[in-house]
Amino acid sequence: MPAITINHAREHIGEQVTIQGWLYNKRSSGKILFLQVRDGTGVIQAVISAVDTSALFDQAEGLTRETSLVMRGTVRADDRAPTGCELQPTSIDVIHSPDVPFPIDLKEHTPGFLMDQRHLWIRTGRQVPILRIRDAVFRAFRQFFHDRGFIATEAPILTGTSVEGTTTLFELDYFGDKAYLSQSGQLYLEATAMALGNVYWIGPAFRAEKSKTRKHITEFWIAEAEMAFCDHAANLEIQEQLVSYIVDFVAGERKQELQQLGRDPAALRAQVKLPFPRIDYADAVDRLSKAGHDITFGDDFGAPHEATLAEMFGRPVFVERFPSAMKPFYMKRDPKDEARVLGADLIAPEGYGEIIGGSQREDSYAALVAHMEEQKLPLDAYQWYLDLRRFGSVPHAGFGMGMERVVTWLCGAAHIREAIPFARQINRLYP
Amino acid sequence: MPAITINHAREHIGEQVTIQGWLYNKRSSGKILFLQVRDGTGVIQAVISAVDTSALFDQAEGLTRETSLVMRGTVRADDRAPTGCELQPTSIDVIHSPDVPFPIDLKEHTPGFLMDQRHLWIRTGRQVPILRIRDAVFRAFRQFFHDRGFIATEAPILTGTSVEGTTTLFELDYFGDKAYLSQSGQLYLEATAMALGNVYWIGPAFRAEKSKTRKHITEFWIAEAEMAFCDHAANLEIQEQLVSYIVDFVAGERKQELQQLGRDPAALRAQVKLPFPRIDYADAVDRLSKAGHDITFGDDFGAPHEATLAEMFGRPVFVERFPSAMKPFYMKRDPKDEARVLGADLIAPEGYGEIIGGSQREDSYAALVAHMEEQKLPLDAYQWYLDLRRFGSVPHAGFGMGMERVVTWLCGAAHIREAIPFARQINRLYP
Repeated sequence: MPAITINHAREHIGEQVTIQGWLYNKRSSGKILFLQVRDGTGVIQAVISAVDTSALFDQAEGLTRETSLVMRGTVRADDRAPTGCELQPTSIDVIHSPDVPFPIDLKEHTPGFLMDQRHLWIRTGRQVPILRIRDAVFRAFRQFFHDRGFIATEAPILTGTSVEGTTTLFELDYFGDKAYLSQSGQLYLEATAMALGNVYWIGPAFRAEKSKTRKHITEFWIAEAEMAFCDHAANLEIQEQLVSYIVDFVAGERKQELQQLGRDPAALRAQVKLPFPRIDYADAVDRLSKAGHDITFGDDFGAPHEATLAEMFGRPVFVERFPSAMKPFYMKRDPKDEARVLGADLIAPEGYGEIIGGSQREDSYAALVAHMEEQKLPLDAYQWYLDLRRFGSVPHAGFGMGMERVVTWLCGAAHIREAIPFARQINRLYP
Repeated sequence: MPAITINHAREHIGEQVTIQGWLYNKRSSGKILFLQVRDGTGVIQAVISAVDTSALFDQAEGLTRETSLVMRGTVRADDRAPTGCELQPTSIDVIHSPDVPFPIDLKEHTPGFLMDQRHLWIRTGRQVPILRIRDAVFRAFRQFFHDRGFIATEAPILTGTSVEGTTTLFELDYFGDKAYLSQSGQLYLEATAMALGNVYWIGPAFRAEKSKTRKHITEFWIAEAEMAFCDHAANLEIQEQLVSYIVDFVAGERKQELQQLGRDPAALRAQVKLPFPRIDYADAVDRLSKAGHDITFGDDFGAPHEATLAEMFGRPVFVERFPSAMKPFYMKRDPKDEARVLGADLIAPEGYGEIIGGSQREDSYAALVAHMEEQKLPLDAYQWYLDLRRFGSVPHAGFGMGMERVVTWLCGAAHIREAIPFARQINRLYP
């Protein structure tokens, strides 16, 4: 009898099935034992009566948490169960029974303890639905762009140059040369867009930031797209369509997981109705100032500012046309006001912070060199990037999305470390 | 008039269209000028007659390679063209005209020169179809596993431990601790499989190997899958199904690109008919020895051995049950012969070498500790990995596929550096 997975159990009501998994939890109510069995796709409850099946009852009573097992039995409809069914087992074969108690009980633990046990923590509670939602967010991003004729590509991780300065770079020895871990694939995606048209990727990015906040990890996954023949306005349009698509995709495919996390798929969908509001940076500063924040034109936003803006709109909001001095050299200046860039950040609802940063890219060779000289960047290392403006430069634009930020928001997670299987933080390299 | 992409031009025969792209090449035949325009999705030929459109002819005659432009015109059927059509332009708007000649002409250049110009080289010749095939290989891998209920995940890139020894590791300073760039996500995928069931990912992997061969790069993309409740035999079955699926997917979606590279989609499909042959390591050594190779039981295979095996079979071939001493600690020993492992390598046809390495994993705590002690590995650093055998251990198996090796094979490329947008080699960190 081939095994089925728990997410498909409700398609087998009345049938004999085999389930392979782990004992997640166990409780008894007098002469009835309830086993929660998990297999990664879901959790099913097996009900064993001491009266009807006393040998099985005795065997099951001795099982401890995270015992691996193969269970055979009949699927019964049960409207109260999240899976819509339960199992009436006829046999249990134990594969491996732990010698010591599973270290994570289902009560509260400190974050430090849970992160030390991350390899086991991911088997429990909210972590399985979060990681299943993460899978759907990644797939949604890729599907969106593939459906629009974009080509998937990869940027190098090891680079001799860096996009946003060297203060937050991880450096390593590369056969006697200095190399850095990439903070963004953008510059390489620009080169690839000039070869392939529209491109996208999801890859790891690294920032050696010492900040310990609930929104920062040192290794994160960035999802980027770069489009030839694209301007600032079209860039924002595709970003809002993307975010709306991802939410709709996840709300459809991972409805049960969202509900397990206490998230309402319909409410998430309502948050991302198009179009998203666009406000000018100066307007944002003004609104924040009026709301009591101590902020003036030229200041960057911190978490409290982003939270206030999010609260004002209740849905994702673009803040556009930041002062040029605040932003990297590659952003195109607004022709109406050289002191501003044709770029925008997208702020997530509910205080989850910036999820996208994007811009039209400077396509003039002379202007790009001028920006680089202003910021005292080494022109030599960027010759290849400057070549993109020497040979058939075109208006182009793109953006980067922090995947863990998006997962944190959709899951309503308290900390970004739960949005990635094995988070890396300033004091965390294990497991 | 919204722009169309060149791959969709044949759907607009007889219509007026706009195409945005770059001038790839130009030739004239007396009073007729032929412009090859590329946009990343394909190349279309625009035909301009000096008699019918003399002003346009004069303008076009002055255009240089890699000029970016917007061209309007009528699509005409042309059975001789790879796109099935050509363009009869009515106007050309130049976006940017290079001041200097494009450095890559369409003749021969040295590999070193081309790699220095990689950011421009990817616009030319075989490079565009190779990168478009790469996109399809990546998508095929993900589609295969998603369709089978696997969950996409990510392993960390920065690790405190390593899977296969430290001699070929890139090391870096991580806030005062030593960290290494991952050579494989396998150990983490094993942990995730115990939480989510069946998992897969594609991520970057790093090997600080000093070897300069046409099959090695220091940064490559590894595609891995890990399956709970899976044994060696089932592991090989899913690998051969995967490879067959990828070839079929690429032959279907990228038929034109394969043909541009001189590869016959039907011949590739014929190479991957199921099942793939499985030969024992001892048998492989015997065959190689008889074929004149100087090899004895216990030796690893090099490129010449792999090439001979490939030639013997003319299709992918599994070599299984390698001597335990040659293989990493995590491979499960064959219960019939402890000196062998339940693992296999998959050798690609045509001398493209090993494309997959996989095994059933050791699921016994005691056996795993014994293997680690034999290989003098630090038990402390692997406590989290050992925990997977302490708490509900199950038979499980998995494998890793070198994506650039697969792309090189399918494209018939001469060197792996062409199978990735920006290759990293021992002497190559730029661009």
